[in-house]
Formats: sequence, C-alpha cells, structure tokens
Amino acid sequence: MSTTFTYEHIYNFSKNIFLKIGCNETDAEIATQSLLSADLRGVDSHGVARLSGYIRLWEAARVNAKPELKIIHETPSTAVVDGDRGLGLVVAPFAMQVAIDKARAVGTGWVSVKNSNHFGIAGHHAMMALEHDMIGIAMTNASALVAPTFSKERMLGTNPIAVAIPAGDQPAFVADFATTTAANGKLEMLQRKNLEAPTGWIQDKEGNVSTNAGELKNGGMLVPLGGDKEHGSHKGYALGAIVDIFSGILSGANYGPWVPPFPAYLSMPENMPGEGIGHFFGVMRIDAFRKADEFKEHMDKWIIRFRAAQTIEGQEKVIIPGDPEREMEIERMKYGIPLLSAVVEDLKALSNKFKVDF
Amino acid sequence: MSTTFTYEHIYNFSKNIFLKIGCNETDAEIATQSLLSADLRGVDSHGVARLSGYIRLWEAARVNAKPELKIIHETPSTAVVDGDRGLGLVVAPFAMQVAIDKARAVGTGWVSVKNSNHFGIAGHHAMMALEHDMIGIAMTNASALVAPTFSKERMLGTNPIAVAIPAGDQPAFVADFATTTAANGKLEMLQRKNLEAPTGWIQDKEGNVSTNAGELKNGGMLVPLGGDKEHGSHKGYALGAIVDIFSGILSGANYGPWVPPFPAYLSMPENMPGEGIGHFFGVMRIDAFRKADEFKEHMDKWIIRFRAAQTIEGQEKVIIPGDPEREMEIERMKYGIPLLSAVVEDLKALSNKFKVDF
Repeated sequence: MSTTFTYEHIYNFSKNIFLKIGCNETDAEIATQSLLSADLRGVDSHGVARLSGYIRLWEAARVNAKPELKIIHETPSTAVVDGDRGLGLVVAPFAMQVAIDKARAVGTGWVSVKNSNHFGIAGHHAMMALEHDMIGIAMTNASALVAPTFSKERMLGTNPIAVAIPAGDQPAFVADFATTTAANGKLEMLQRKNLEAPTGWIQDKEGNVSTNAGELKNGGMLVPLGGDKEHGSHKGYALGAIVDIFSGILSGANYGPWVPPFPAYLSMPENMPGEGIGHFFGVMRIDAFRKADEFKEHMDKWIIRFRAAQTIEGQEKVIIPGDPEREMEIERMKYGIPLLSAVVEDLKALSNKFKVDF
Repeated sequence: MSTTFTYEHIYNFSKNIFLKIGCNETDAEIATQSLLSADLRGVDSHGVARLSGYIRLWEAARVNAKPELKIIHETPSTAVVDGDRGLGLVVAPFAMQVAIDKARAVGTGWVSVKNSNHFGIAGHHAMMALEHDMIGIAMTNASALVAPTFSKERMLGTNPIAVAIPAGDQPAFVADFATTTAANGKLEMLQRKNLEAPTGWIQDKEGNVSTNAGELKNGGMLVPLGGDKEHGSHKGYALGAIVDIFSGILSGANYGPWVPPFPAYLSMPENMPGEGIGHFFGVMRIDAFRKADEFKEHMDKWIIRFRAAQTIEGQEKVIIPGDPEREMEIERMKYGIPLLSAVVEDLKALSNKFKVDF
C-alpha cells in the first residue's frame, strides 16, 4: 500500500512544484522544508500528502505565490505581520525570524500574523529558535472542526500549540499538539483501516458520543482535549480559544467559525471579520532569564529524571516530548519516507499537470 | 455543614493574621486579596481554607513574612525575581507588576520567579493585566502529585495556567485551569461526600485506573489532562512540563519531583536543585499588536458568537471561560462566602492562637 522515497527525491519534486506556481527559489526551498518536516517527523497527514491541497488553494487564487511579507505594526518586543495571502509554509518562518531578532534585541519577541494560510506543523517553526539558545513557541488557528464543551456546532480549529526548549547534552524538549483529544489525521488513518475511533474523540452532529471515525463527513465534530466536561474538555476548549484569539484577534485575521477552510472546493464563510488565517509566534532568549549553560544543565537533569520515572506495567519508558518525532526523523532520513499509494497517485497527477518529474 | 460570612469579615480576619506573623500593612492586604479571590471565585480549596496551611509554613520557617523582593536579572522585556521565601500571595502580584511595567515600556513583559511559595489561584494574578488593556498570563509549578503518561511516579504538580484577555462591553475572557483532568480540590470534595471519582481522574500507586477519590492517600497519583494516552494525556503531560520548565528552570527554582510540598509537616525533597517553588508571568499590551478598541470589539464579537453556539440537548448554553467564576464572585460579594465547619474550626484555632477576633 505504500512506496518509499528518499527525502531528496520528494524534496526536489516539491520544490519544483512550488517554483512552477511562481515561488522564488528561496521561498520554494523554505516552503518545501516546512512541508516535509511533517513527513520526516511522522506527521504524515501534514506533509507532502497536502502538497496538492496547497496547489489547489493557489489555483483558487487563495494563495499568493509572490507575497510581500510586511511588518505592519511593531514595538521592541512585538510585531504584527501581514502574510499577503502567502503560503503559511513561508510566512511562518518569516514571522519566527522577526521574533528571533526581537528576542536578540530585547529578550523576547512575539509576533501575530494575519492574512496567511496553513503553515504545516507548528513544531517545525518553534524549533527555529533552538539553535539560538532560545525557546520557540508557535500556534495557529484553523478552520472550525471542533465543538466547544456543551456545544454541537463547529466553532474552533484543531488549533495546535508547539513549544521547543533547548537542552544541553540531551535532545531538545519539543511539544507539538492539537488542542483536541486526537488530531484529524488520526481519524483519517482509522478510516483508511476501517477501524472505529475510541470514545472521546468525536461526536455526531447532535453532539452524541460517536465512535465512527468518518463522523466528520456526517456533520460530526472533533472534541476538545479532555473529551467531555467531566474529564476537563472545558480546559481543551479554553486552550483552543486562546490559540484562536492570539492568532486571529491580535493580528486581524479571521477567528472562530470564520476561519477559511483548507480544502479549496469548500466555500468561504460568510461575513468574515478578518483576513486569512492567523498564527502566533513567541521566542524567549534563555539568557534573558539566566545563563544559557546553567539552564541547559538543568534541562538535562529534568529530562534524565523524567526519562527514568517508574513506568506502569507493560510500558518501557516515559517519553520526553519530541522523542518519537526525532527518532522518526533519523529513521526516515536514513531509510526514506513511505508514501501511501493514494498520495503517490496525487503527486503523479501534479507531476503531469506541471510537467515536473516525480 | 457550612456557615456564611461576609467578605469583609473574612478579609479583616485574614489580614490581621498576616499582620500577626509580621507582614507589613501593604503585604497583609495584598496577601489577603490574593487568597480570598479564590473564595470569591468559587475555588474554595485555594482560599481561606488554606490560611492555616500558609501559617504553618511560616511556623516551619519556610515562609518569610518580610521578604525583600528583588529583580536579580533583567532585559527590557524579561526579569527573574527572587521571592526571598515570601508568601507567593505577595510575590506573584509583585512579579506581575514588573511584567506590566515592562509591557508598558516595550510591548510585553515576561517574569520568571524563584524562591517563592504557593500563590493562591493563577487567575487572580493574570487578571491584574486587564485594567491596563493588557493580556495577563500566570502559571506556577507545585509539588508533585501527577504521573506523566506511562508512569506510576509523582513527577509534576497540578501546574495551572491562567490567561486573562480583555474584552469591550463583554466581560473579560479568563481561563484558569490545572493541567490535570481534575484539580485535587475536586477530589477532596468527593471524599467529603463519600463519592467515587470518575475514571480518568486518578490512578493507584501501580498506575491502574482508580475511582477511589482518596487514592492519593494510598500513594496514588493524579493524571494529566486527557486521562490516558489514547485520549491525549501526553498533551496534558506536555503542558504540565512546560509550566514546570518556565516556572522552575528559567528562574532557578525547584522543578519536577523536587518542588517543596505545601503541607509543612511533609519533609522536603532530597537534593533539591533550586530555590523554593517557581512561577511564570507574562503580560502583552494589546496596542503593541493592534488598537485596543479594535481588538476589544472583535473580542466582543468572539464572545457573543461563542455564547450563541448551538448546544447539545440538556445544556442551556456554551460557557465563556471566566463566566462561572465571575457570576460566583458577584453572588458571594452580595450574599457572603459559605465556609465548611471544618474550615471555621480551623480559623477559630488560628483566632485563639494569634488572639485575633474571628
């Protein structure tokens, strides 16, 4: 059901496609790196499988391949970036760089972005801070698939949060998670395998608990982290809301049920209050708080202690956020990236359409 | 089982007790406001019920009633505060004020605190930013009661996060939640009523699912928001870890299993790597991103839209974070604060010991 390709092979193809739609050389490379970081890290739903989706947004004139990225408002520690309808894959690294520069100057940098599109995986952008001995934070809103606690209406996206924290000898701590019980990509995997979803992942259009992994197609909804009120879904809902407000309202992007959908064939929400989708980035320079070496020594101690925590029966070890993705990246760089046949077909269609070898 | 007292009555008593242990007039008032904000907002477990606990920490020389609060490191947008073993109830408002001042100057302010003690409820401190048209963020680590995903060892505190966001005509958005499925206070309430806990709140000392609300006394543990891996507990664990690292490691406080316990009768962890417990505060000036009036208009739109979201059968309305606490505060300011008889007994004992009228 799947064929394995080298990173280089997929990289060159993806870059050439982005060049074909009019991206300049640098942007085509940045977009490809952002996109494929998902494949490398094992988040297959957000990687090259979505390339054709981004291209369809360009065909629908919702993505501008030659955006003029601009800071439209700023203070020493903040900025608002207008993404000019660019690929989020390119807008996000630009905004992170603004945050890094501000952190270098005054200790921290906080950038809210409007008028952007989907940016791939949040973790990739957050990790840009690591090599500078800085903490990186990235989040984004997304089109509504999630019902708040007590509701049966799609009001929030899966609104992920990523936080990357440098360590010393240990690998960095990298958390990257949707603010729902489970990301949509996991439901898609279950559907492909014809399996049911666990309770607490999804509800039907009336708000009843459902185990139908395809319930979204019937008007169903994802639920916030926690699952239901008794298990703290109001906390997941609050987290998703905070991501929405920081990304959408601070910047002047859309928010809540007005965030434009990723699939280009879906119509846009009516009476949109802002421009495009919104992101939010934060960077904190470690030595704006304490000496970076000291901090990293304690991070190592934290990581080593947590890794050694006693496990419950049947579990080998406690996982440090970022461990599985890092291991996957090493493996896939070495052995290649497996793509499902449906994805390969999709890329071949792009290959034909744009006369780019695959 | 409970007696109702006016806010003023409890306020005067609490303030007089803090004066008796040596707090100056201002600190006694600030500490009392921090503490009683929990009673007003309905978080009874964190309010005056804990007054005797704070006093016992002072008796054990773990709380310094006359702390010299100092900024020990800073940049234009950051600071580290040494709490000098002061009451967290006093240290936190000091640190928030530092963050507010920095936000006024350079757009945002981020303050990590070491050498502090428990600070009451996070939401109270985050809300200090609201009157300045700023977003307030507050978090703290706490002594370990929570097992990471796959673990049966207490490694993290309930590590709450609060985010307060100003609105226009609508009341502010105020989220304030422990990064566990349920806060310990809720388990205590169930125990008092002799009720079982829902599954997904707690595990026994071997890491098995438990519904015994008193399981902590048997060596059990709380679980991170999500409950188990299948329902995203690795996300709750990551959130708790981020709070721990921002509060404990950025500042030089203790972290993970080394955070000192609140009950003064419990012994301190061995080989503690830092000083006291840690907090982390953030403040963002709205107009460092966009005009405050514009932002607040869109916040009103967000709140009104979410309040109007379709509800599932049997539920009256979708709740905006902060709604229940605000309604409770209005009610309790008007009709008084009910205290359980055990709490009243506790306060009477303090009254006798310190010769302060109750």
